[in-house]
Amino acid sequence: MFAKKTMSVVIGLAFGAEFLITVWAQVRPGDGPRYVNGSSLARPTDYREWVYVGGGLGLTYEQSRNPQATPRFGNVFVNPSAYRSFMQTGVWPNGTVLVLESRFAGTDEFVSNNGKFQGALRALEAEVKDSRFPDGWAFYNFGTADALRDVAEPLAGEEVQRCITCHTEHTAVERTFVQFYPTLLEAARQKGTVKPGF
Amino acid sequence: MFAKKTMSVVIGLAFGAEFLITVWAQVRPGDGPRYVNGSSLARPTDYREWVYVGGGLGLTYEQSRNPQATPRFGNVFVNPSAYRSFMQTGVWPNGTVLVLESRFAGTDEFVSNNGKFQGALRALEAEVKDSRFPDGWAFYNFGTADALRDVAEPLAGEEVQRCITCHTEHTAVERTFVQFYPTLLEAARQKGTVKPGF
Repeated sequence: MFAKKTMSVVIGLAFGAEFLITVWAQVRPGDGPRYVNGSSLARPTDYREWVYVGGGLGLTYEQSRNPQATPRFGNVFVNPSAYRSFMQTGVWPNGTVLVLESRFAGTDEFVSNNGKFQGALRALEAEVKDSRFPDGWAFYNFGTADALRDVAEPLAGEEVQRCITCHTEHTAVERTFVQFYPTLLEAARQKGTVKPGF
Repeated sequence: MFAKKTMSVVIGLAFGAEFLITVWAQVRPGDGPRYVNGSSLARPTDYREWVYVGGGLGLTYEQSRNPQATPRFGNVFVNPSAYRSFMQTGVWPNGTVLVLESRFAGTDEFVSNNGKFQGALRALEAEVKDSRFPDGWAFYNFGTADALRDVAEPLAGEEVQRCITCHTEHTAVERTFVQFYPTLLEAARQKGTVKPGF
């Protein structure tokens, strides 16, 4: 009788564990890309809770074409599971999502006359590592803040070719500007995954 | 017999649930301040995986005193549980830790002649909400990157009084510069916790 009860408790424990693990997996889904119709990307709504990898001011193509343009801040966030994987290996796992946020710059006369801080959102783009795409990476543009798309199709044709060329020739690791992301750069240096010249 | 077995399974499930919740709580400890000797703060080592709330360039007292000084980037990170609580309530919970990172600015001639990106760490400070301190907030300085302290004592005397005065008179919410943190500012506006004038 005691043995039977013990066995029932053990079976119960096993069921309990399985049940809880299932629930836990359901409430904490993967943080990778959410696709619509296979290749379009649903705009990540929680990327501000992802890992911030770096940013800059006036570090845009626009600034390059027109140096008189008002400089914007750029922030780059990555999904946490991809960040942890990169920190351990120096390479991006399939399912990496990098979000590039552009923000207007504000000034504050009290703290510093010359200083600039980050203001309202201006535009949102994303880059996803996915082996199903010809280059292994897909590029998305969610548009400007006044008309953000909920879902973006992958850039195609000449448009994506420009992304790929620049993200191949001028990036420190794979298709990503790791030279601008200090904690990632240090990890990549340790793992020997930085391209020559960086 | 069937009823007994069922009850044993139910008890087993309950034990299983309790066991797993206990294990889960142990492997995911709180993300609040880790004190040494009661009030000194152990330098958070994982703050780069916390939530990035905002930042700026040249937004420092140093810049204000000497406008010719080379501007630095400032990044502010907060522990995730405090971020989520603020987004829901517009106020900081006890145990909030804000980390201020100062980074050297680099330039990249390819992407933009005028653009600046974030380089090596320069210095690290922190601010903690803790009702045990006279002001309700404590301020810590971990020093410069070449000699970072593992543990910092809370600033005291005239030094902390300067922090408190500035963080009282020139901050949008409580003792924090929420006017520079766009997602937090929006939440605080919705909750009505922004000070008049911001």
